Amino acid sequence: MSHIIKAGLVGVTGYTGMELARLMTHHSSMELVRVTSRSEAGKTLAEIYPFLNRLPLGDLVITQPDPADLASVCDVVFLAVPHKTAMEIASALLEEGVKVVDLSADFRINDKATYEQWYDVEHTKPELLTEAVYGLPELYLDQIMGARLIANPGCYPTSSILGLAPALEAKIIETDNIVIDAKSGASGAGRGKNVGTLFCEVADNFRAYGLPAHRHTPEIEQEISKIAGTDMTVSFNTHLLPINRGILSTIYTKLTSEKSLEEVHALYTEFYADKPLVRVLPMGQLPETRFVRGTVFCDLGLVIDPRTGRLVIISAIDNLCRGASGQALMNANLICGLDIDEGLPMAPMMP
Amino acid sequence: MSHIIKAGLVGVTGYTGMELARLMTHHSSMELVRVTSRSEAGKTLAEIYPFLNRLPLGDLVITQPDPADLASVCDVVFLAVPHKTAMEIASALLEEGVKVVDLSADFRINDKATYEQWYDVEHTKPELLTEAVYGLPELYLDQIMGARLIANPGCYPTSSILGLAPALEAKIIETDNIVIDAKSGASGAGRGKNVGTLFCEVADNFRAYGLPAHRHTPEIEQEISKIAGTDMTVSFNTHLLPINRGILSTIYTKLTSEKSLEEVHALYTEFYADKPLVRVLPMGQLPETRFVRGTVFCDLGLVIDPRTGRLVIISAIDNLCRGASGQALMNANLICGLDIDEGLPMAPMMP
Amino acid sequence: MSHIIKAGLVGVTGYTGMELARLMTHHSSMELVRVTSRSEAGKTLAEIYPFLNRLPLGDLVITQPDPADLASVCDVVFLAVPHKTAMEIASALLEEGVKVVDLSADFRINDKATYEQWYDVEHTKPELLTEAVYGLPELYLDQIMGARLIANPGCYPTSSILGLAPALEAKIIETDNIVIDAKSGASGAGRGKNVGTLFCEVADNFRAYGLPAHRHTPEIEQEISKIAGTDMTVSFNTHLLPINRGILSTIYTKLTSEKSLEEVHALYTEFYADKPLVRVLPMGQLPETRFVRGTVFCDLGLVIDPRTGRLVIISAIDNLCRGASGQALMNANLICGLDIDEGLPMAPMMP
Amino acid sequence: MSHIIKAGLVGVTGYTGMELARLMTHHSSMELVRVTSRSEAGKTLAEIYPFLNRLPLGDLVITQPDPADLASVCDVVFLAVPHKTAMEIASALLEEGVKVVDLSADFRINDKATYEQWYDVEHTKPELLTEAVYGLPELYLDQIMGARLIANPGCYPTSSILGLAPALEAKIIETDNIVIDAKSGASGAGRGKNVGTLFCEVADNFRAYGLPAHRHTPEIEQEISKIAGTDMTVSFNTHLLPINRGILSTIYTKLTSEKSLEEVHALYTEFYADKPLVRVLPMGQLPETRFVRGTVFCDLGLVIDPRTGRLVIISAIDNLCRGASGQALMNANLICGLDIDEGLPMAPMMP
Repeated sequence: MSHIIKAGLVGVTGYTGMELARLMTHHSSMELVRVTSRSEAGKTLAEIYPFLNRLPLGDLVITQPDPADLASVCDVVFLAVPHKTAMEIASALLEEGVKVVDLSADFRINDKATYEQWYDVEHTKPELLTEAVYGLPELYLDQIMGARLIANPGCYPTSSILGLAPALEAKIIETDNIVIDAKSGASGAGRGKNVGTLFCEVADNFRAYGLPAHRHTPEIEQEISKIAGTDMTVSFNTHLLPINRGILSTIYTKLTSEKSLEEVHALYTEFYADKPLVRVLPMGQLPETRFVRGTVFCDLGLVIDPRTGRLVIISAIDNLCRGASGQALMNANLICGLDIDEGLPMAPMMP
Repeated sequence: MSHIIKAGLVGVTGYTGMELARLMTHHSSMELVRVTSRSEAGKTLAEIYPFLNRLPLGDLVITQPDPADLASVCDVVFLAVPHKTAMEIASALLEEGVKVVDLSADFRINDKATYEQWYDVEHTKPELLTEAVYGLPELYLDQIMGARLIANPGCYPTSSILGLAPALEAKIIETDNIVIDAKSGASGAGRGKNVGTLFCEVADNFRAYGLPAHRHTPEIEQEISKIAGTDMTVSFNTHLLPINRGILSTIYTKLTSEKSLEEVHALYTEFYADKPLVRVLPMGQLPETRFVRGTVFCDLGLVIDPRTGRLVIISAIDNLCRGASGQALMNANLICGLDIDEGLPMAPMMP
Repeated sequence: MSHIIKAGLVGVTGYTGMELARLMTHHSSMELVRVTSRSEAGKTLAEIYPFLNRLPLGDLVITQPDPADLASVCDVVFLAVPHKTAMEIASALLEEGVKVVDLSADFRINDKATYEQWYDVEHTKPELLTEAVYGLPELYLDQIMGARLIANPGCYPTSSILGLAPALEAKIIETDNIVIDAKSGASGAGRGKNVGTLFCEVADNFRAYGLPAHRHTPEIEQEISKIAGTDMTVSFNTHLLPINRGILSTIYTKLTSEKSLEEVHALYTEFYADKPLVRVLPMGQLPETRFVRGTVFCDLGLVIDPRTGRLVIISAIDNLCRGASGQALMNANLICGLDIDEGLPMAPMMP
Repeated sequence: MSHIIKAGLVGVTGYTGMELARLMTHHSSMELVRVTSRSEAGKTLAEIYPFLNRLPLGDLVITQPDPADLASVCDVVFLAVPHKTAMEIASALLEEGVKVVDLSADFRINDKATYEQWYDVEHTKPELLTEAVYGLPELYLDQIMGARLIANPGCYPTSSILGLAPALEAKIIETDNIVIDAKSGASGAGRGKNVGTLFCEVADNFRAYGLPAHRHTPEIEQEISKIAGTDMTVSFNTHLLPINRGILSTIYTKLTSEKSLEEVHALYTEFYADKPLVRVLPMGQLPETRFVRGTVFCDLGLVIDPRTGRLVIISAIDNLCRGASGQALMNANLICGLDIDEGLPMAPMMP
């Protein structure tokens, strides 16, 4: 029969690891054969994730992370570990000849100094910064298909860049007057023990956080600057939603000249015509986080405010799926020669 | 290639219709070719469900419900309409030679008088009560596979019956001292306009409702009485949870004689050994609604309280999936000769 | 002993009516003696609001709205009815010699034509537009104390205007480049039957709505233009949060010249020094909706982004309390000669 | 003017400490003059609780817990610390001549051996077990008023005992066939760092926990046995609700002889006639957690199921208010000679 790709996952206990386990359960061409965790090694996946009981993946035994062992059985390895840790493991795995999809921030920033300034650690593998491909398939499809090392995009950058790309490429908006008001579900804050993300601190509450310098800012600016062909600075601001999954970014831009909604909508529709995982909603419809829940879709809605000359772009993704593990799987599919959407659910959980 | 089963759906605008649309998006052997709604006929599915944009199902045009039209293109039709309405359409469809999976209560109660007493309407198709098969595959697999008309079980009964069946069959619990304390997510209350199910009336709140005579009571009693071989009366009580999906039933029973947890767990495991869609969790683990979210699994947890001689059975399902549309699809698969789990997701959305 | 003010409430069945009933339960100088509702007349308050059982207010019988009857027993009447309805009742009550606090939009817009353009109905009492005082005590304290008719501010405008006032008065921000990204809890959508505000449509979801022309826009522009001394146009955009109560507005402005956070914070602190119901949080702290839950506080947080030259103002209120009934009670206190905060809770419900 | 009672609070950083700070903000006869915390000493209350900004209590400086210091300024001290820690501090404070309201479990269980068996620590102050009064005012009003040491009841026991007391006293139910199915909001799990109580682990989820031996079991059994005049064993089972506050207990009992709902309702109403903080709802109404949110009310609803001969009692409280800090304040009021309800809100936050 057909060849089954063997995959490994380093760091299975966080929400991105959990999400990858969910997605791999339904993949018919790729199989998860190694999952690692320093704290849970020795247990089966079903022991830490009872939702995997009676499923084949539930019997997989968690191991200690070991590049040589991973390389001995895997074609591709997903890294779902914190930044800094990721760069070391990635390097070791590449040396062993395994392809790597890194979900951390370690290879997203092209410039070593910028990375070190925003992440406050030394980058010890700068030579890989050049090789790594930024894994946003709508922008870098060809490079991804030939890559060994994918820097899987951040959740906020994915929603922001996909929302801005058509307008910036068409040069219809001012590049120095962009505000991104982004809101994320609580899974984006991770699964660590923390008073600030307890149910009673998040539920029935709403707040901003991380202002004015969220670490995803340089990643957004790097990518949109390339599209616009000019160095851009954006105002990027983040908020915590009392929902499990989902990012909705409301992006405020100034049109350089008057445009009708029809014109802008046509431009966006054309831009994404051959990129089916971005959905430009019909005029008059606006994205909601639930419409993309559990999927890799990025939904875009467009509003023109003639009173202020603004184009408002609303962009929604599932932060765990398109914003992390789902996009990682898209990338893994591509670097392994599979269709981009293999194994990925297309219909969201509603409600 | 292989034959694709053609399916119809009468009543697409409620949560069960929405859920069936989600499930059918991923079914490779069955295709939804007709969806009907009196109020939304003429629109495409994507117009009322933006989450179907850019998906094949999104272009399907909603039609008026018409048995002859449905019969002309469908092998099987799902009825997601209120009780009383369902019995008339079911009858018409069967006459046209189409198989029917009815999600309403109309064919669940074998006894006409009992149905009429609890549902307060006349049953106009009593001859079909005998023919209809109660669509709980763990109990009636063979009958379902040969049926024309399936009475798809209620959500609460599904969780209650599957939780009690092994203990009743093994005659280890008293049959006259059972309390079922059931809690359901808000999608169980339907998608109608209603002050009582507004967000602000349900969120950050918890309450009982429908006591002491919820309409699912006779359905539960009918089925467990058959298993026990004696007429049973249970205390069945329902509560509204501030969650979208999920039913968790805590079932209190009295052991007829002392039993260890190991013994009862072995008995349950054996009962469901060849029924992989019910998961008896390992001893010490208890079900949670999220472990079954979006799936057809029924998860069971067992607790013995030696102080009171009680066996407490905890049963969790997704009320929209196993409790409605997912089980309907299991039944449709079976009556159409497919595997029971075709098209059904196995990994829940976590978180 | 001291004189007890007698109050009436027209429209008790919505969330603003419910909130006023809550607040009046603890007021020692004002008593609710009449509550009206066309649909619930004849019942006691406790019958429709079981939370008032065993409380004095619970025995109050709901009556049909009748200006003459209200005037015969009330010193002041709150109107919690839809716009258009309110203007007629207000006029009748004023003629009967009763003071009126109108929670609708009918007297907020000074200009008849602007009102009619945004609300799409004729204003039949234009003579009262001049008399009505906009009930934002931080701006109009003296006028409120002498008024007969208070136009109680909208929820979004309250948060937006209080957030912008100090910066505009001090002329430190550009007046033509302001974006208000506002998010509201679901009680702001009212208690009417509506599929869009069902629990399952709002919970675990986030979306924008009403773009680009929410009806609170002219109210905001009118008031901030007065403060700035120039006609202003703002980009005002609204979103629906899956929480019961609370508005958080993130307000993006451009500084006209470089300012330190210390300078701006001092300016805000000074502006609100003698207005204790607005809290400028210490530098580094940001507002959260829960910090004001159930209170009339408006909490402000300030952020300066030196990369973009922006001052970001975050403003949080409870939409039902400061944004509606609590502010109405502040106004009623003032026009009746009481202290502004009589009867008002100061500590929020946490968590 | 009148004497102001001086109060202290040991352990201010948890949810019960936070709740007491909320309540004391509005108390006119008792003032919080000392709050202690080992980890936060030196900060003001407003620094850790921004909701206290611009309020008098916000300026209170947190100190290290020191019995002598507390005794030097306090008439009464609340202990909001874990069990075992509490018994030591209580003893020291009593020796210094201060009255103590202990919110922990340390003095609730009369029998030293039972305490040690369920809490798995040695009780080092057994002499105080005899002196401590169980602080449920509906049962022990007179003893509380003369006490030095109050054992403030647990949250679950409060709801269970108040629900069962009238029926047990009237001997209308079987004493050996009681099931309590209790559901609690997440604040009951405390404010410690914990993966299990993260937002994403609790939201949109429901689960049982602690079965079959929750530590509140012996407390419930002790108190209801006294009322019934016989040793009772109950089946007590707990669940975690995705809400902030609230406990709803559904209590299943067997009537010893046929009774009408009218008879039982009259019996309950009579029992609580002179106890206004328990509300027996009118027949046909059932409690909801929101009806008591933020208050000390215990709401009771009664259902008779003639098919099974069961009386179902539904009991709702706010676990943080009536179930902890609010009841502690009721007790402090009583032992200090104040009215039981001074400083306590009577109207819940709705919605």
